[in-house]
Amino acid sequence: MEYTKPLARLIEYFQKLPSIGPKTAQRLALYVIKMSENEVNNFANALLEAKEKISYCSNCFNMSSNNPCEICTDNTRNKGLICVVAETKDLMAIEKTNEYKGLYHVLQGLISPIDGIGPDDIRIKELLYRINQNDIKEVILALNPSVEGEATTLYLHKLLKPFNIKISRIAFGLPMGSELEYADEMTLLRAIEGRVAI
Amino acid sequence: MEYTKPLARLIEYFQKLPSIGPKTAQRLALYVIKMSENEVNNFANALLEAKEKISYCSNCFNMSSNNPCEICTDNTRNKGLICVVAETKDLMAIEKTNEYKGLYHVLQGLISPIDGIGPDDIRIKELLYRINQNDIKEVILALNPSVEGEATTLYLHKLLKPFNIKISRIAFGLPMGSELEYADEMTLLRAIEGRVAI
Repeated sequence: MEYTKPLARLIEYFQKLPSIGPKTAQRLALYVIKMSENEVNNFANALLEAKEKISYCSNCFNMSSNNPCEICTDNTRNKGLICVVAETKDLMAIEKTNEYKGLYHVLQGLISPIDGIGPDDIRIKELLYRINQNDIKEVILALNPSVEGEATTLYLHKLLKPFNIKISRIAFGLPMGSELEYADEMTLLRAIEGRVAI
Repeated sequence: MEYTKPLARLIEYFQKLPSIGPKTAQRLALYVIKMSENEVNNFANALLEAKEKISYCSNCFNMSSNNPCEICTDNTRNKGLICVVAETKDLMAIEKTNEYKGLYHVLQGLISPIDGIGPDDIRIKELLYRINQNDIKEVILALNPSVEGEATTLYLHKLLKPFNIKISRIAFGLPMGSELEYADEMTLLRAIEGRVAI
């Protein structure tokens, strides 16, 4: 069957989004057609406005409609503490804990030789510049426990050592609510290696 | 954490769509911001155009940018055969089999007393009108095997009987590739009741 043209195009655009397959794209498109004209206009405007107004903070490379971003200009935050993450979505995940009150640095990627991404392709220079220019006391490395995350963590650790600041990394181990019996070997190994005195 | 305003609004709109939770909405919104300006413009236009141009065929109530729709005006199709479905998405599912070559009638809902939807709230009158005005030989009822689908099928069967046309319904039974051992009792019961001679 051929979809009627404007429907086919809308389905195609939904399908370009991550984690949206053909069936979901069809469902979303049909839903849009049943929405009121006003709602569809607002949705289209939200898309355009987000794209137009949001850019990257020139200090920490977080996504924001302000530059510097809301986090960098928040005076209640500890300006001596930087948490290094790979992407804005990781920053958002940490913000949702509502506990961390320092600044961030978004690398906008991880070192990945296989994908041709080297240290110069992500925001490492900018991190060193911040540490040089500001009175930073501690850097927390909060990168994914993947090959790329580990490689980037090691690389950053080597680079940051000479600065004589505290460098830490987030803990890896059993997730809360999980069962030891079902944990994979690597996680269990990390949990044992990372054991803390009680 | 508070999202920067235009991002918060975009996430909110994505979350209004069916099957999109807060996490997926955030992922989609962040993806949109990384898309090129041109792509975002095209996406927004696809939304507006689909809403503006697509409406319902006044004959079969399929969604289309033409009236009558592409299916009703397709001369290669068997105009004596109508397949009755609840929603446009059901029509699309049947079209994807590439085997059915008759017309459709989209009821735009099912009879559901609990939700206050009676026979007059869906396109039953319009179906009777079509059967009265045209030389229809067979009506296939292709409604979901749910309480509402069954009720609507029974109701339509009673209404259509006096027309002296062939009335059939789609078969219910074991889905292809499934295993008898894991089928639920209702499905198995239907499969046995609907057994065919070989």
